[in-house]
Amino acid sequence: MEESQGGKLLGFWVSPYVIRVKWALKLKGVEHEYIEEDVFNKSPLLLKLNPVHGQVPVLVHDGKPISESIVILEYIDQVWKQNPLLPQDPFGRAKARFWAKFAAEKLQEYAWKALCSRGEEHERAVKSSIEALENMEEELNGKKYFGGDKIGFVDLVAGFISYQLPVYEEIACMKILDSSKFPAITKWIDSFRNHPLIEQELPPKDKMLAYFSKRRNEILLVENQTSSRK
Amino acid sequence: MEESQGGKLLGFWVSPYVIRVKWALKLKGVEHEYIEEDVFNKSPLLLKLNPVHGQVPVLVHDGKPISESIVILEYIDQVWKQNPLLPQDPFGRAKARFWAKFAAEKLQEYAWKALCSRGEEHERAVKSSIEALENMEEELNGKKYFGGDKIGFVDLVAGFISYQLPVYEEIACMKILDSSKFPAITKWIDSFRNHPLIEQELPPKDKMLAYFSKRRNEILLVENQTSSRK
Repeated sequence: MEESQGGKLLGFWVSPYVIRVKWALKLKGVEHEYIEEDVFNKSPLLLKLNPVHGQVPVLVHDGKPISESIVILEYIDQVWKQNPLLPQDPFGRAKARFWAKFAAEKLQEYAWKALCSRGEEHERAVKSSIEALENMEEELNGKKYFGGDKIGFVDLVAGFISYQLPVYEEIACMKILDSSKFPAITKWIDSFRNHPLIEQELPPKDKMLAYFSKRRNEILLVENQTSSRK
Repeated sequence: MEESQGGKLLGFWVSPYVIRVKWALKLKGVEHEYIEEDVFNKSPLLLKLNPVHGQVPVLVHDGKPISESIVILEYIDQVWKQNPLLPQDPFGRAKARFWAKFAAEKLQEYAWKALCSRGEEHERAVKSSIEALENMEEELNGKKYFGGDKIGFVDLVAGFISYQLPVYEEIACMKILDSSKFPAITKWIDSFRNHPLIEQELPPKDKMLAYFSKRRNEILLVENQTSSRK
């Protein structure tokens, strides 16, 4: 069978790393074949295409595999020029890369830690998440999207804020996204989630609640066992 | 005073993040003004130019600050086209970005953890460092540099392997870089370190030994105090 224009994407329904790639392909209007992976029982295909990490997403284009969601976004933006994700000027690109890295490595990691921890560690992670969100609020302020008038690179990477963070908050009974404290982010969430191409790829909330509750319990259980062995 | 062609670089003598930027500017033949920061007593200038992280390196070019070493390398490569760091084709760029991320986020973090930990945690970090190096050995095999015949993006990011990792090994009495296990990396270290533009920016080994021994002791002391309070 011939490869479709945008190749094959190996993914997992709830992975924010996969969803940002799906969004990018949608925004570019690039057709692709989607293959759902069971990340708890990885296929030989996934392990062959991403032998280093064995993780989704993997985009296979022109027969060649590309891994790491942010690397894939850069690739997509270079190969399909329509609806650019990154600005063209070097400083604009540097700014976008800086904030994408910040969203992925600071906010996303702290929020995940806040979901999957207890006690002091949890408190610290909630505090760090709020501080990271303060930085993003300041960066966004006055713009519709991080990229300006249109959804761009940073919006796609930070997109988890709009649909996963509220799920984490509900499960762990914590408040990070206080709308009175984060008016720009709150407005951005509304515009972003309701964009027709973004909305199409949002996983159902009830399924996310069930999935992340289970993951959290598993992680907390392993941690309890580890610390009780000490 | 007029800004020099390559702008101003705020750095710290032993930071591998700064050194990779210095190398990139050297390879491009771009003159710049270098400002040494005291990272333990940050200047108002640094905090103004990088308010989010307050970290070096910061490159100020055309009056605008750029932070995060890998973001700076991308910027340099776009602004000064001579001696390209990244390949031009999208797949080659994706591969280089993947391995740069891997070197920076896996090997570098594990090696630092191996330096600054004890007991089981140290053993695990040494094992992870060796596994990460195995991946890099396989990627490099058959090439002079990660970028091919010339030093490129991945070489600059992975460059710490050639001059900091041996220092970590000596201080923590550990062996990660076994030359019989890593013949390609061993040969690469030799070519890379002896490249005249790379060599110029290597900090003196005795100063690195003193600096990292002190840092390690400080970090281990804080961890001891934290765990004894539990």
